[in-house]
Amino acid sequence: MSLSIGVDVGGTKIAASTVDEHGRVRHQARRETPAQDVEAIAAAIVEVVQELRDRQGSEQVQSVGIACAGFIDAAGAVVRFSPNLAWRDEPLAERIAAQTDLFVLLENDANAAAWGEFRFGAARDVAEMVMVTLGTGVGGGIVSNHTVLRGTHGMAAEIGHMRVVPGGHRCGCGNRGCWEQYASGSALVREAREMVAAGSPHVGELAARCGGDPQKLTGAMVTEVAQAGDAAAMELLEDLGRWVGEGIASLVAILDPQMIVIGGGVSAAGDLVLDPARSAFARQLTGRGHRRVADIVVAELGNDAGMIGAADLAAARRPDGAG
Amino acid sequence: MSLSIGVDVGGTKIAASTVDEHGRVRHQARRETPAQDVEAIAAAIVEVVQELRDRQGSEQVQSVGIACAGFIDAAGAVVRFSPNLAWRDEPLAERIAAQTDLFVLLENDANAAAWGEFRFGAARDVAEMVMVTLGTGVGGGIVSNHTVLRGTHGMAAEIGHMRVVPGGHRCGCGNRGCWEQYASGSALVREAREMVAAGSPHVGELAARCGGDPQKLTGAMVTEVAQAGDAAAMELLEDLGRWVGEGIASLVAILDPQMIVIGGGVSAAGDLVLDPARSAFARQLTGRGHRRVADIVVAELGNDAGMIGAADLAAARRPDGAG
Repeated sequence: MSLSIGVDVGGTKIAASTVDEHGRVRHQARRETPAQDVEAIAAAIVEVVQELRDRQGSEQVQSVGIACAGFIDAAGAVVRFSPNLAWRDEPLAERIAAQTDLFVLLENDANAAAWGEFRFGAARDVAEMVMVTLGTGVGGGIVSNHTVLRGTHGMAAEIGHMRVVPGGHRCGCGNRGCWEQYASGSALVREAREMVAAGSPHVGELAARCGGDPQKLTGAMVTEVAQAGDAAAMELLEDLGRWVGEGIASLVAILDPQMIVIGGGVSAAGDLVLDPARSAFARQLTGRGHRRVADIVVAELGNDAGMIGAADLAAARRPDGAG
Repeated sequence: MSLSIGVDVGGTKIAASTVDEHGRVRHQARRETPAQDVEAIAAAIVEVVQELRDRQGSEQVQSVGIACAGFIDAAGAVVRFSPNLAWRDEPLAERIAAQTDLFVLLENDANAAAWGEFRFGAARDVAEMVMVTLGTGVGGGIVSNHTVLRGTHGMAAEIGHMRVVPGGHRCGCGNRGCWEQYASGSALVREAREMVAAGSPHVGELAARCGGDPQKLTGAMVTEVAQAGDAAAMELLEDLGRWVGEGIASLVAILDPQMIVIGGGVSAAGDLVLDPARSAFARQLTGRGHRRVADIVVAELGNDAGMIGAADLAAARRPDGAG
């Protein structure tokens, strides 16, 4: 039995698990992320790895995969830049390997999650997939021909920054009109707040849910009110779903995947978002009629996808491993 | 010396050449395309192959690569659909192989051209590239990790149908707002005709060049007048270039290539289009400041790229070949 440890380093917590070769999680461990202290983050990673090894029996664990937001070099050894953490050109793999005596591989968190879904989740039976993560922003991962598409700088699959509206809403990346300004949880909240603030006669339920203060509205509230059947909230999710589906149509024109896997917090709204997304996608897909319309499905591994994917990638890349 | 024959089957002509393993063209042959007659197209392909073998000495030629517009199956054996030719689920590779006793591989023409530029042309020194062909429409090919990205149905890299303007100009694919409605030679002609028809005071040179009839304007005329220094024509190319660069920024967000190779008729305008394209791209690229800005360069192999790429792909995929 070959085991690999997956570590997902987020802005607030470090989650880790021991994963077997079928993608099953054996044990889990977690820590707070000491986000601004490079040494402390590395120490916390070493700690969770040791904790999991102790619980598992150290001789069985053979590799560590670390998923984190940011740009990872092609070898999976160096964090070039991380938006939420203090790493700049940090040789993290070597550092963790030296302290654990294990093979260590780094991967971008969205790529790792896509790989997890590709290997063991919603896309386990396809060869070409795109994962679209609808959260605060829109992230993604691309698997083509059984391989993560990383690009030259490990910066591929920044699909949330495809421009969908010239001169559109300002994005955190500095541009205007990025897809994530229309298809993310933040976009949903912005639209919901505007709708309530405008005082339209049909926003009663949404207004009640936030106590009349639009600034207190959250995406979860909109979903909850929509699931209870409120028309205004359902419209907001429908509009969001249309942007999701239309953006996917552009991605499919470029990448021609067999399946699109939707993850992230917004996916909790399920068919209230996905049905309009599927309709808009089918309507907008170029070459429709000459191709099978790709499936749009919800992710299956939830927050574990990144850990599982990173663990599996590390197991496969280990020099004396099976991969 | 291993030789392969590349055949580019276009809507009006079939161009073929013998290509060596360094991508050098030895001999060339061509025929008119009998576009609506499936049997006649196959016969014409066999004819040019035999002609080139006779001239080369048949024992040296070991494979045939055929590039054509349309959707090719994953094995490179069957033309699923071709927009300009009469093929529907046509097992073309087997048919040509049976009549020539050579290994035959099919590839989409834009993919073949991208592969040609990747192996022997402008992108010969990079690992990740996108080719953008600015002609009547906008086509493309993607090479990632030294492999052509084909997608599930061989329909990847339909980059001209990425949507860039919601509710924008109607496209031949049935949608609105596709990139090719803003960045192609046809878009240039449409804008030039509108400008002349509107009778703006500064369109004198363009109006003179088409004898006062906007419908007679061509893209080549616009380029010619712009190259002579006319401000209105230069503006048209600048606008086109901006759309080119902004679309490339979206592609780079998704694919992160090292180089973008520009081919097609519009590329003849050179820096009049490419300088504004480069500026718009650098301004619009997400993550600018944290990545090297990809190079935008002109293709080097011209109309030979598809033949050379197809020949090389066939040589590499031949079962007992070196590839």
